[in-house]
Amino acid sequence: MKEILILGSSGSIGVNTLNVIRNFPERFRVKTLTVNSNINILEEQIKEFHPDLVVVRNKHSADTLRTRLNGKCEVLSGDEGLTEAARRDNYDIMVSALVGFAGLAPTVESIKLSKRIALANKETLVAAGELITNLCKEYKAELLPVDSEHSAIFQCLAGENPAEVDKLILTASGGPFLHRRKETLREVTVAEALNHPNWKMGSKITIDSASMMNKGLEVIEARWLFGVSKDKIVVVVHPQSIVHSMVEFVDGSIKAQLGLPDMKLPIQYALAYPERLKTTGQRTEMPKIRDLSFFEPDMEKFECLKLAYDVIEEGGTAPCILNAANEVAVSKFLDGKIKFHQIPEIIKCSLDNIENHRVPGIDIIFECDRQTRAFAAKLFS
Amino acid sequence: MKEILILGSSGSIGVNTLNVIRNFPERFRVKTLTVNSNINILEEQIKEFHPDLVVVRNKHSADTLRTRLNGKCEVLSGDEGLTEAARRDNYDIMVSALVGFAGLAPTVESIKLSKRIALANKETLVAAGELITNLCKEYKAELLPVDSEHSAIFQCLAGENPAEVDKLILTASGGPFLHRRKETLREVTVAEALNHPNWKMGSKITIDSASMMNKGLEVIEARWLFGVSKDKIVVVVHPQSIVHSMVEFVDGSIKAQLGLPDMKLPIQYALAYPERLKTTGQRTEMPKIRDLSFFEPDMEKFECLKLAYDVIEEGGTAPCILNAANEVAVSKFLDGKIKFHQIPEIIKCSLDNIENHRVPGIDIIFECDRQTRAFAAKLFS
Repeated sequence: MKEILILGSSGSIGVNTLNVIRNFPERFRVKTLTVNSNINILEEQIKEFHPDLVVVRNKHSADTLRTRLNGKCEVLSGDEGLTEAARRDNYDIMVSALVGFAGLAPTVESIKLSKRIALANKETLVAAGELITNLCKEYKAELLPVDSEHSAIFQCLAGENPAEVDKLILTASGGPFLHRRKETLREVTVAEALNHPNWKMGSKITIDSASMMNKGLEVIEARWLFGVSKDKIVVVVHPQSIVHSMVEFVDGSIKAQLGLPDMKLPIQYALAYPERLKTTGQRTEMPKIRDLSFFEPDMEKFECLKLAYDVIEEGGTAPCILNAANEVAVSKFLDGKIKFHQIPEIIKCSLDNIENHRVPGIDIIFECDRQTRAFAAKLFS
Repeated sequence: MKEILILGSSGSIGVNTLNVIRNFPERFRVKTLTVNSNINILEEQIKEFHPDLVVVRNKHSADTLRTRLNGKCEVLSGDEGLTEAARRDNYDIMVSALVGFAGLAPTVESIKLSKRIALANKETLVAAGELITNLCKEYKAELLPVDSEHSAIFQCLAGENPAEVDKLILTASGGPFLHRRKETLREVTVAEALNHPNWKMGSKITIDSASMMNKGLEVIEARWLFGVSKDKIVVVVHPQSIVHSMVEFVDGSIKAQLGLPDMKLPIQYALAYPERLKTTGQRTEMPKIRDLSFFEPDMEKFECLKLAYDVIEEGGTAPCILNAANEVAVSKFLDGKIKFHQIPEIIKCSLDNIENHRVPGIDIIFECDRQTRAFAAKLFS
C-alpha cells in the first residue's frame, strides 16, 4: 500500500490521480490533499478518500473549511502549509500537480525526504532544472514524469541504455491555432485559445498549448529529466495526439509510445512503476486509429517554442525568467488585458531586461522569479 | 569479437548480415558461410570475409568451388555439410537464413550447442515451434528474431514484464494486391506478385507477402517466440512499412518500433543485443514520414492468413503441413504451374488429407513435411 500526497487535488491532474486511486484501493491510499482555494471540491474528496491532512493555500478558505469540518481532518494553510505537508515524512509518493512556479518549494522538500515524485508541474524543472536534478541525485529521490510526452519517453527508455539515445522526439498536437495564419493570431479570443482539440486541461496549460509554449516548457523539462542536450530534442507536430512521443536510438531504431489522450495512463504508470496495472477503460484499439500524421512545427508562427529553445542555450536563470514572464503573460491574456501575440513579447522583453545569473542557487531562483513577475506585470498595463 | 555462422549467405538476409559485419569489423568475424548453389557470390564473399569453412548444398557446385579454391578454404556439401557446420563448436552466433523447412535441422544442432541464433528462417518455428522452444529452454540457447516485425516486438518488450502484455500487434504492408478485388487475384502474373511495394526480398517470401501467408507464418512464429496465445496476436495492415510492429500492455499503453524498411537494423540488433551499435546510414528522420495509416486485413481475400490462424488452433503437425504445402504451392506458382488463388487451395487440401499428429517429435515433423510435400506436389499437376 502506497500513501499518496497530491499537491493540487482539485485540478485536472489531481482529479485524474484520484480516479486512478479509486480504481486501485488495495494499492494506493490518499494521505494528504492540497488545493488553492476550491474547498467545495476538496470537501467532496475528503468525504470519499479520508486524507489525514489537507492544505488550503488561501487562508480565508482554509478557515471556512476548518469550521465546516469541525476537527474531522487537520487543515493547514498558506505556502508554509504546503511546505509543511511536503516535509512530513508520512507518505510514499508526492504527485506534484500545482500550477506554475508554486510547485517548486514543496517539491524540493519532498526530494530532501528521498521520496518518489510524480511530476506534473513542469515549471519546477523549467525554472530550476539543474538544481532539482542535482538534489535528486544527492538525496536519491525518484523523479517520474506525468506529462504524457515525458511518460512516453520514459516508457520507451525502459530496458534501454541512455548512452544509446540519439534523439528525443516530442510530439505536439499543435493546439487550436495549428492551421491559422500568423497574422490572424493577433485577433484570437480567450475562448478560442481555451478550445484545445484533444486534451481537456486547466486554463494555464491550455493557453500554453495554444501558444506552443507548453511544448517549449516540455523541451526544457526533457532536457533535465533525461539529461540530453537541446540539439537532441526534436518537436514534431502530430495533430491526433495518439503517439505521445518517441525516442530514436543510435542504430536508427525508433520507439514510440501510443495511447488515447487520457492522463490516467501516465499518472498510473508513475504511481505503479515499474509495474503496469491492468485497466478496463477505453483503449486505442488498433487499427481503429486509421491515420497518424506528422509534420514540422512553424517556429516563426509559434515564437514561444523558439524562445524556449533559446533559453536552454542561454542557461542560468534564463529559463526561470521565461517561465515567470510566461505565467504573468498568460494570466494577463486570460484576464483580457493583453492580446495573444503579446505573450511572447512580454517574455522577450523580460529576457532582455532581467539579469541572467549563471549558476543560480535556490534563493537566486526565487528572487529572479519575483523580480521577473514584478517587471512583466508592468508591461502593457 | 563474435564469430558468425551464416546459413544462407547469398540470400537477402545473408547479404545484409555481411553488410552489417562489414560495418563492424572490430565486433564480428565471419566463421562459416553456406549457400545452396550460388558459388560465384560465395567466392566473392570468401575473398572479402575469409571464412574458415563454407558449405555448398549442391554437391556438384561444391566440387567446382573446391577446385577453384584449391585448398584456400574448407568446403563441405549437402544437408550433412550444413548439419556438420552447425555442429562444430567454433562460432558464437548462427544467422539462420535458409529459405523454408531446410533451416530446421542445422538450427536444432546450434540450439544443442547453446548458441545465440538470429532467426530469419520463420519456417523453423512454424513447423516445429513447440519442439524448438522447448529445446531452447533445455539447452539455454538464445533465439533472437531477425524478422523486422518480431524484432520490433522484441525491442518493445525490452524492460517490460511479459506477464503484462495484452496484445502483440503485427503490422503488414498488405503486399502488392492490397487494393485488388478478390476476384481479380485469379489472374495475377508471377511478375505482379513479385513486385513488392516496400521490401526487396527473395522470391519465396515475396510471394508469401503477396498472399499474406508471410503474415500468417509470422503470427505462428510470434506465438512461439513470445509465448502468447493466438487471440492475443492481431494483424494490422500498415502500407508504409514504417511501424514494424507494436505491443499493447495491460494498462492500455502501446509501444511501437519504427524505422525505414531495411533489414540491416533487425539483423544488427540480433547480433549485438543487448547493445545498439551506432550507424550512419539513412534514417527515418521524423517528421519526414508524413502519414502512417492502419486498417484491418481482409481475411476473406487473403485466405492464407486465415488458414494460419486456423492451424494454431488445430495444433500438432497442422502448422507443419501448412508450411510444407505452402512451400510446394509457391514453388509451383513461381514455375507457372498453378494460378495465384490455387496456393490456399493446395494448403487446404493438404490439411484435409494429411494426418495431424498431436504431440510430434522431430522425426514425426520431418516425416510429416516429407509426406505433405509428396501429396501437394501431385495437386493440380
